[in-house]
Amino acid sequence: MKYLPDWLLRYRRAWFAGDLTAGVIVTVMLIPQSLAYALLAGLPPEVGLYASILPIVAYALFGTSMALAVGPVAVASLMTASALQPLAAAGSAEYIALAVQLSLLSGVMLLAFGVMRLGFLAYFLSHPVISGFITGSAVLIATGQLKHILGVKVAGSDMADVVTGLLHALPQTRPVTLAIGVGSLLFLWAAKNYLSRILVRIGVPAGAADISVKLAPMFAVIASTAIVAIFRLDETAGVSVVGVVPSGLPQIALAIPGASTIGQLWLPALLISLIGFVESVSVAQSLALKRQQRIRPDRELLGLGAANVASALSGGYPVTGGFARSVVNFAAGAQTPLAGVISAALMAVVIASLTGLFHYLPHAVLAATIIIAVTSLIDTATLREAWHYDRADALSLIATAGGVIVLGVEAGILAGVALSLGVLVWRSSRPHIARIGRVPGTEHFRNVARHTVETVPGLLALRVDESLYFANASAFEDTVEALVAADPATRNVLLVCSAVNQIDATALGVLDQLEQSLAKRGIRFMLAEVKGPVMDRLAHTALGQRLRDRVFLSTHDAFTRVAAD
Amino acid sequence: MKYLPDWLLRYRRAWFAGDLTAGVIVTVMLIPQSLAYALLAGLPPEVGLYASILPIVAYALFGTSMALAVGPVAVASLMTASALQPLAAAGSAEYIALAVQLSLLSGVMLLAFGVMRLGFLAYFLSHPVISGFITGSAVLIATGQLKHILGVKVAGSDMADVVTGLLHALPQTRPVTLAIGVGSLLFLWAAKNYLSRILVRIGVPAGAADISVKLAPMFAVIASTAIVAIFRLDETAGVSVVGVVPSGLPQIALAIPGASTIGQLWLPALLISLIGFVESVSVAQSLALKRQQRIRPDRELLGLGAANVASALSGGYPVTGGFARSVVNFAAGAQTPLAGVISAALMAVVIASLTGLFHYLPHAVLAATIIIAVTSLIDTATLREAWHYDRADALSLIATAGGVIVLGVEAGILAGVALSLGVLVWRSSRPHIARIGRVPGTEHFRNVARHTVETVPGLLALRVDESLYFANASAFEDTVEALVAADPATRNVLLVCSAVNQIDATALGVLDQLEQSLAKRGIRFMLAEVKGPVMDRLAHTALGQRLRDRVFLSTHDAFTRVAAD
Repeated sequence: MKYLPDWLLRYRRAWFAGDLTAGVIVTVMLIPQSLAYALLAGLPPEVGLYASILPIVAYALFGTSMALAVGPVAVASLMTASALQPLAAAGSAEYIALAVQLSLLSGVMLLAFGVMRLGFLAYFLSHPVISGFITGSAVLIATGQLKHILGVKVAGSDMADVVTGLLHALPQTRPVTLAIGVGSLLFLWAAKNYLSRILVRIGVPAGAADISVKLAPMFAVIASTAIVAIFRLDETAGVSVVGVVPSGLPQIALAIPGASTIGQLWLPALLISLIGFVESVSVAQSLALKRQQRIRPDRELLGLGAANVASALSGGYPVTGGFARSVVNFAAGAQTPLAGVISAALMAVVIASLTGLFHYLPHAVLAATIIIAVTSLIDTATLREAWHYDRADALSLIATAGGVIVLGVEAGILAGVALSLGVLVWRSSRPHIARIGRVPGTEHFRNVARHTVETVPGLLALRVDESLYFANASAFEDTVEALVAADPATRNVLLVCSAVNQIDATALGVLDQLEQSLAKRGIRFMLAEVKGPVMDRLAHTALGQRLRDRVFLSTHDAFTRVAAD
Repeated sequence: MKYLPDWLLRYRRAWFAGDLTAGVIVTVMLIPQSLAYALLAGLPPEVGLYASILPIVAYALFGTSMALAVGPVAVASLMTASALQPLAAAGSAEYIALAVQLSLLSGVMLLAFGVMRLGFLAYFLSHPVISGFITGSAVLIATGQLKHILGVKVAGSDMADVVTGLLHALPQTRPVTLAIGVGSLLFLWAAKNYLSRILVRIGVPAGAADISVKLAPMFAVIASTAIVAIFRLDETAGVSVVGVVPSGLPQIALAIPGASTIGQLWLPALLISLIGFVESVSVAQSLALKRQQRIRPDRELLGLGAANVASALSGGYPVTGGFARSVVNFAAGAQTPLAGVISAALMAVVIASLTGLFHYLPHAVLAATIIIAVTSLIDTATLREAWHYDRADALSLIATAGGVIVLGVEAGILAGVALSLGVLVWRSSRPHIARIGRVPGTEHFRNVARHTVETVPGLLALRVDESLYFANASAFEDTVEALVAADPATRNVLLVCSAVNQIDATALGVLDQLEQSLAKRGIRFMLAEVKGPVMDRLAHTALGQRLRDRVFLSTHDAFTRVAAD
């Protein structure tokens, strides 16, 4: 019993109606999405269906979110395609085997991170980098799907190849395919933008109206499949269709990747894991907070890891928590992961006996659902906000998006991470250093440049607004030396450390050298307001020993002492 | 006149004696070093001599240090060899041309950094990374020279190749070469460790004794060359000698590298530039401070850039400020860069007419001078200190040194930089967050876990000891939510920002979401002690607007307000 998840042990009958409704609605969304994302990943449609059964059950057993809907998602599918296309022909047996192993590696990494509590690795991805990555991926995905809308073949996966390929293939456009594709795009776009309002106006409750919008892709799938099947448009007009989807539940099998496969796949697996984790946690977090629940990030790593291992065991490919499906799941009343289990059971029924229904489903309709889904991921609001708030963050976002589009998904995100770390170091490499004096009649001290304050002759009192570490230690030393050189009467240098949260070994060396160099010139170096953890470490160093009598609890104490000398 | 350097315009006759002495002494050190470092770089000996003339003059015109001795150095020579060995056969015309272009690229980069004031790029290299890099390089250099001491040939440049090569070649050891090599090593080692003390004991002044030690390599060169020449050991015992060194001043020529060469050389050129800059500046800085002078880092970039361009123009290879020679230059009384100019003039005389004297100079002696020089670069003191002060910094040092030895110089330093940035993010990703209360009867606030303080019911007051940014924003949010969940009576959350020096876009988003989520539960989010620059940016955001009435100047004000509600 103790190995059963908490939600199952304390399950209440009252929750069942919500879970059942949500499970059914999510399944209706999941069927077209899993087929479409498999197409995007360069995999046969059944692989998308496989990835929508066991992974959901595995997450239900190990995850902590009550509403996260796990399965194939757009960005992870793009990353899968981008990782595997250089290694094997899309759709080949080798390609499918690599997709399974990518999922296994990603799952094992997530489990390992969870066990080692390395969830903080995801913090290397700043919001601007993630936003830029998602936006760039969405542009890449949407552009890549245009060939299905036009009904043409285009080789290559990077942006330049795809765009030139599309331009060359334009004359071969198949009119009926184009009509189906553009019709689906228009229908899905209109449904997304107007259907909810229309339904509300005719009396449907707002919640139900919102959910109905999410079912529009299923309607497009049914209607277009019926039209193609009735008029045999696949034969008469060359409309590309899904064709035979093997029926039957996935085989359970485990293929351990060899060293050379691991060498090829570890980096994409790591990036898929981290991005999937960040996105899942942010969706799960925001949904949990709406119901005053908490999720536990390190347990989420286990849940997502188990889901990916389960996907690999059952012939699927990398999965994670999907944004749109999770929101629908939550809105449709899901109380526990039982909703997901119900959805998985329904998917199992579909794949066991109903795959024949997908035979005449046009690729153009799947492409249209992908395009409509990913265009909503293009995030201009974050860019606009970042541009106003913090230009450097905005540039990280643009560089990541541009990098993804021009260089590809892996190089793009690595460039973004490198840039955001560079911005971090650059920013703190020029710390704000204020020369301070006493506000008359108080024990408060403020910047001499901003306030009318009293100073003590021969005392240079500085407040540095940054931790001292390798990126700014030399700049700090330069500032102190320049200020001392500017006032030859200086006999005391006081460093107020109220904003110094850390002093690393590099900065310690610089401070030590500064203190010695000042001492040779008869200038006393003093510290005030050193934080406990910083002082604890400083106390055992040579500098700390020398400074023993010159570390003051407050700036006021230091001023009093110097004035008394 | 205004284009002449400052030191020349205000030159005083009294300085000349010091400059002349220093110039002569440095030349005597420079001759064996420039030959030895050219050998280390895989270049013919004359290239080392070329790199010791014009670069010194160029630095004298543009640099700001009065004592820095520019020219070939051990680490830059190793980096040159490591960059060029994959591209051409050591010593070939193509190899020499690439070395010249590497110097040109490095010079142009340094000039560009100087013009754009990008000296801060060097701050990406923390002291532990630099120390680890130098130590790893010294081990690599010393091991690589053993073949000359043994008198055997060993191919390959990475550690594994060199060590296995040495082991295989051991039986071919040439006994006379070995005797000369080991004899030189013992002599240089004894001179370095005992000569100064002995000279002082027999009455030589301490300063002069220290300088004499630095002339020991020249003595070894003269004595060994004489012995080899007299007994013709090159023919009778197969002792490898320098041979014919072309005499005559270097030709001035400029070869612009093509795009493919730039593609191959930009990364090594960048690393050589940055490391050379960091080392030069730290030597120049410490010498300048001894005489109450200042150097200007951005001008140093121009000085070193000009030196490397001059080296390239005159058939040399990458140069930078050398540690040992600069210290000797300073100790021997150099007052201005005229000392360098004198040394350059003497080197010009040597190369114009005295290269015949190097014919019988054994490679084993040059190798011995290199080994003795670089073993003093192995820096265990920094490791020991870092180990006690900051375990993560110590690990960066070890990883960089190990990376250089196992993976090579470029991969090693890149791994070190990545690791030090990783440590930076990891450290600040788990900020110290203190719940604070009022020290009774005061306006001071302290950690409730460390002090006896008063709290206000329903008020959760937190002080976060770190800037809020992408790496710690989520961890901060998690902590707040956990504390709020632990005390359902919470009605106010106060964030004291005295140590928050920056809030980036990611953290802004998190705070915004946190404020909204708390507000939905009827909990008020408040700020206190927000720094001016942080508040300036916050004021224009949606969060800043909502919080307008809830930002307090002091923690005391916030406590008073909540208590009054």
